[in-house]
This record gives sequence, C-alpha cells and structure tokens, in this order.
Amino acid sequence: MAIPSDLQLLADREAIKELTAKYARCVVTGDGRGVGALYSEDGRFAAGRFDYVGRKNIQDFLESQTTPGKNMPLVTDHIIEIDGDEATCYSIMFTPWFKGKHPGFCGAYSDLLRKIEGEWYFVERSFQFFEGRPEDS
Amino acid sequence: MAIPSDLQLLADREAIKELTAKYARCVVTGDGRGVGALYSEDGRFAAGRFDYVGRKNIQDFLESQTTPGKNMPLVTDHIIEIDGDEATCYSIMFTPWFKGKHPGFCGAYSDLLRKIEGEWYFVERSFQFFEGRPEDS
Amino acid sequence: MAIPSDLQLLADREAIKELTAKYARCVVTGDGRGVGALYSEDGRFAAGRFDYVGRKNIQDFLESQTTPGKNMPLVTDHIIEIDGDEATCYSIMFTPWFKGKHPGFCGAYSDLLRKIEGEWYFVERSFQFFEGRPEDS
Repeated sequence: MAIPSDLQLLADREAIKELTAKYARCVVTGDGRGVGALYSEDGRFAAGRFDYVGRKNIQDFLESQTTPGKNMPLVTDHIIEIDGDEATCYSIMFTPWFKGKHPGFCGAYSDLLRKIEGEWYFVERSFQFFEGRPEDS
Repeated sequence: MAIPSDLQLLADREAIKELTAKYARCVVTGDGRGVGALYSEDGRFAAGRFDYVGRKNIQDFLESQTTPGKNMPLVTDHIIEIDGDEATCYSIMFTPWFKGKHPGFCGAYSDLLRKIEGEWYFVERSFQFFEGRPEDS
Repeated sequence: MAIPSDLQLLADREAIKELTAKYARCVVTGDGRGVGALYSEDGRFAAGRFDYVGRKNIQDFLESQTTPGKNMPLVTDHIIEIDGDEATCYSIMFTPWFKGKHPGFCGAYSDLLRKIEGEWYFVERSFQFFEGRPEDS
C-alpha cells in the first residue's frame, strides 16, 4: 500500500472519511434531511429493496425513516481512491442495535463521490448486507 | 464536506484521532491512570452518574474502575473541528462486551480538546448512552 | 498526543490504515490469497494456535480458511509509530459474526510493517483474543 504524499489528496481523504462520519451522526441523531443533504443533487441511495435518486427524494424518504437511536452506524475500514474531483470509498458498517433490537446488521457501503465547489458529496451509496437484515429493507 | 489542505491541521486531526485510540488501548489493557493522563490538568470526564474534574481525580477514579478486558471501546465516526489550539471531536463508541457480558453498550463521546505545549489533551469527555447501560453507571 | 506535521509521515499513516482496511475487505470478500499478498515475503501471521511464516505459506493457509462473509473485521483505534521504513500499528478488531454465529470475537492486532519499494506490507500480524473465540483457533 502506498498513498502519495500530496497535501490536497490527504485533505480530500480526510473530508471523505468525515463525510461518512457525518452520515453516521445524522443517522443516529435522527436527522434524515441532514443525511440526505450529504448527497449531490443527482445522488442515489440503494440498500436492499430501497432505491432513491435525487437529493430531495432521498431526503423525503429518510426524513420519515430516520429516528433518533434507531441505528448507530459504526463505519470502519475505509478504502478510498481519488481521481481529481471524483472518488470511490469502500467501508464496512455495523449497527449493534436496530430499532432497539440487538444485533442489528452488518454490511458494506460502496460509494461514489464528487467534489462540487470544494465540497465532497455522495453521488451514490450502495449498501450490501452481510449479516442481519431489517425486516423492512 | 471540505477539509482545508493545511499540513498542521491534518497532523492535528491525526493526533486527535490517535488520542481517542490511546484512550481505548488504555481502557482495554486496564491502565486507568494512563487513561486519566490523556486529560488536561483541569480535565473533566462525564458519563451517566459519573462526573469527575481534574486529572488526578479522574485517574484515582479510573484506576479502581479500569481492569483488563472489562470493556473494549471500538471508536468510530470521528468528526473533528479545530480552531487553533482548541478542538471538538464527536465519535461513536461501542464495546461489544462489558465485564464479560455481551452486548456491552453504545453511545457517543463529545470531546473538547486543547493543545498544550504541542500535545493534545482531553479537556472534557462527555459520553451519551444510546443502547445498553452498565448497571453501575 | 502530537503527530509531526510531516507530509510523508501523514501519507505513510494513511497507507498503513488503508492496509488494515484492505485486509478487512479481502477477509470479508473471501479473498484469502489477497489477504496474504499484504504480507512481506518473510511475513508472519500469528493468532491463537495458528502461526505461519512466509507470504506463500500464509496465502496457502488463508486460501482454505477464508470464505465470503465468514467474518467481517471492524478495525478501529489505530495507534501507529513510524521510524523511516519501519512501523508498528496497534488496532482493535471485532467481528460481529463468525461463520454465521453472533457474536464473533474481539481482540487486538499488534503489527510490524515495512515499506518496500514505496509500498507498506505487514511483516508480522499478531492477534490477541479479548472475548469470543473461534473453536478452531
């Protein structure tokens, strides 16, 4: 493994990791519109039977789905590849509880990202379940 | 999300993340005084009914509380904001076991930090429980 | 905690963290030879009763052991010390499931690493179990 010693690249990697952390914080605090705001205008969210395109559609969906403490995403194992203003990020996510039930579920996010006017956004988040599965997914 | 491409800022972010990791290692290895040493002299630790102020008081408390393998903090989802020698850090923590019982508990740390003579310390760690709750907290 | 504001050092830290993430991804996708390829030619993997030396031996062992979704390593709490082309990394790992059973196990990796022709490799990964224990380890 090598990472180029490039200051902008390192800052971009940090921004992308923190974007996934902000996603987690919005999820656990129940801020569904805040989760959606991390997507680009043309962003897409896909997990199980859910598949939404467009920031506003994602926000409308997540606003009703996201409640405080429903799940608490532990996001780990980021693998980031950056090419200018586009990037991919792989991460493993486990929520130990889901709707108060333990264990929740575990899977991986495959993300596409874009830097728009200096800020990174999710263009696509696609979640693959490993174990555990919410009944409504 | 943007992170300025500033070398000192990136180094500070790394130092703050590693501070939370050192905290976790001291906890899991049972080094309570080591945990406390990561606080500033005037630091404060607050979690549930516990609330201690002052490095020495925190160390005295944690020395008796912290035993090897009692809990194993998985610290994720860092969100860091730095303003000169002061910073905040949000992180989600899950310990899969607590005192040998599974599952342990999950919550979030809200930290205040200060850089003193080039080293970052916790000025305040405040933990909010999401799920699971040690009976003695 | 302080981290020197040195560009190469920060890039090396990122590379080492991502190496542990690539390890996790190879494990969860069932790519045992890919896991082994992250070791140096003279690398060593030690966990419980397992102890393998040499990349090819590690690959041969892991190829038979590693199947998709068998475990899903959440790697957190990295503590990295770099000295030129050598480094150590401590991390805590929890797999919420192991062979479909929940909970899996939790422990810590103590890694030695070396930079060879610009790329970081594991020279030694030694895993210490905290809780949970696969029956075949």
